[in-house]
Amino acid sequence: MKIQEKQLEFKGSGENTMSKRLSGRKIAKNIYADIKENIELKKITPKLVILLIGNDPAAEYYVQNLEKKGSKIGIEVETRILDVSIDQQSLLEKIDTLNNDAQVNAIMLQKPLPSHLDESEIVMKIDSNKDVDAFHPLNMGNLVLDKEGFIPATPAAVLELLTHNEIETNGKHIVIVGRSDIVGKPLANLLLRKSDTGNATVTVCHSRTKDLAFHTKQADILIAAIGKPLFIKSDMVSDKAIVIDVGVNQIEDAEKDYRYVGDVDYEVCFEKVSAITPVPGGIGTITTAMLLNNVLIAYKMQNKN
Amino acid sequence: MKIQEKQLEFKGSGENTMSKRLSGRKIAKNIYADIKENIELKKITPKLVILLIGNDPAAEYYVQNLEKKGSKIGIEVETRILDVSIDQQSLLEKIDTLNNDAQVNAIMLQKPLPSHLDESEIVMKIDSNKDVDAFHPLNMGNLVLDKEGFIPATPAAVLELLTHNEIETNGKHIVIVGRSDIVGKPLANLLLRKSDTGNATVTVCHSRTKDLAFHTKQADILIAAIGKPLFIKSDMVSDKAIVIDVGVNQIEDAEKDYRYVGDVDYEVCFEKVSAITPVPGGIGTITTAMLLNNVLIAYKMQNKN
Repeated sequence: MKIQEKQLEFKGSGENTMSKRLSGRKIAKNIYADIKENIELKKITPKLVILLIGNDPAAEYYVQNLEKKGSKIGIEVETRILDVSIDQQSLLEKIDTLNNDAQVNAIMLQKPLPSHLDESEIVMKIDSNKDVDAFHPLNMGNLVLDKEGFIPATPAAVLELLTHNEIETNGKHIVIVGRSDIVGKPLANLLLRKSDTGNATVTVCHSRTKDLAFHTKQADILIAAIGKPLFIKSDMVSDKAIVIDVGVNQIEDAEKDYRYVGDVDYEVCFEKVSAITPVPGGIGTITTAMLLNNVLIAYKMQNKN
Repeated sequence: MKIQEKQLEFKGSGENTMSKRLSGRKIAKNIYADIKENIELKKITPKLVILLIGNDPAAEYYVQNLEKKGSKIGIEVETRILDVSIDQQSLLEKIDTLNNDAQVNAIMLQKPLPSHLDESEIVMKIDSNKDVDAFHPLNMGNLVLDKEGFIPATPAAVLELLTHNEIETNGKHIVIVGRSDIVGKPLANLLLRKSDTGNATVTVCHSRTKDLAFHTKQADILIAAIGKPLFIKSDMVSDKAIVIDVGVNQIEDAEKDYRYVGDVDYEVCFEKVSAITPVPGGIGTITTAMLLNNVLIAYKMQNKN
């Protein structure tokens, strides 16, 4: 069985007729339960090592969340904090050691790296079979060519949401706003594949697109992944659209210090559209689960089971 | 300098204001002249080895053409004909020998392979630094992520045509019909790049697309790459469109045995559109030149000059 199929094994149960608010929480819960069951059945302990350079509060929070979720489902998540002054050669050697350590199934490197490091060389150094973030070009190539390899967690989360809600993509016009290496580009290529979550007509828009609303209004499924808070308004979507919001933006809030909003103005779009994912509690919630699922996939690939 | 930039060094000379018929002949001629000049200046002999399995007349014709063009510009093209009964292991060993031969800069394997061979494993075996067809997933990943690597010859020919005719892509809506691994997908990713031939809003249509004409009529630039003779008719294009025809289809002809036509019905579309490439004499003509240019790029990569 190919990884991509494995990655999509959490099928819609049929019990969920699609609600207008496409929550990610229950989907994530199902994925965690499936991973846990799989791990207990096989009596294994997949291991992820995260390299964290320097101390960035947001990165630390993200990593602690992964450790906590991992420990609940039987995945060992070990964080190694490296000094911000680490040089290129030392970092490459550390990655090499992890590549050669059969006990380590997955390696993540928190980005962005300090500017004195050559990020491209470092990303290429991580064994593509342990590259659960799917940053390595070989994993991107495999994704485009529909070969075995990792799918980045956020695009994988979008496919899970589609699958779980039994949202048909075949022949649908999917408009993606955003062309990043980790969301827009891989998603476009995934949705073009000859697969159950593919066969879509795909349009990719971005900062250079002229008359963005002209394109977004055509979407049967609109995917927003631009990193601009509340950017998509109700006059930019059709009333039949299914809207998937990949954005997670921190904005100031009158009551709390800040709150998180998506790239879509949920409040004004909700009434108009056919269905929409909330932020928080949408794609982001599933993304963490899909990343840990990649760790399980890495274990299986390396141990052929 | 990155390869991609090198691959685009044949800039429009400014002497050509765009004509309605976008011929590839002069562009190809310029590329051959540039390659030849480069090779003579550096006193080098880049070498391409083509593995041809069995005897297919079309493949033999293509290979002989490459040999002839190569010899004119100083690229050694050596064809090795292998018996159609060759087994997987023997073929992998032959590729391994070529990978390790410093005199061989580029390796091409004529496809399709006989059905008893595992094509995917064989393609992966070719050293990605000698993979001038750019079939290796690492080259596809590098293309998507805008890193150094080979661009497949047909998409590279399309970019050359755009560059030579000074056709702006920034912010333009480019509709690609076809999602093949060697044309549609790499082209879509190239046209999305943050580059002089990128920054387009890109739509990819294919056999599953509903109401194809609805999409093709929106195109500022329409690229046909579906392999269906004369498929695009005048009611499927807008009068402002620039039409690039990647198709090469053999059809029966009353006078000769057969003739070649594109995916676009050139005769009926010519009057309507803004500009259009002919078949033959359009993209295909440039493609052969770009393949040989990839051999020169391979030499330079391997010899750091």
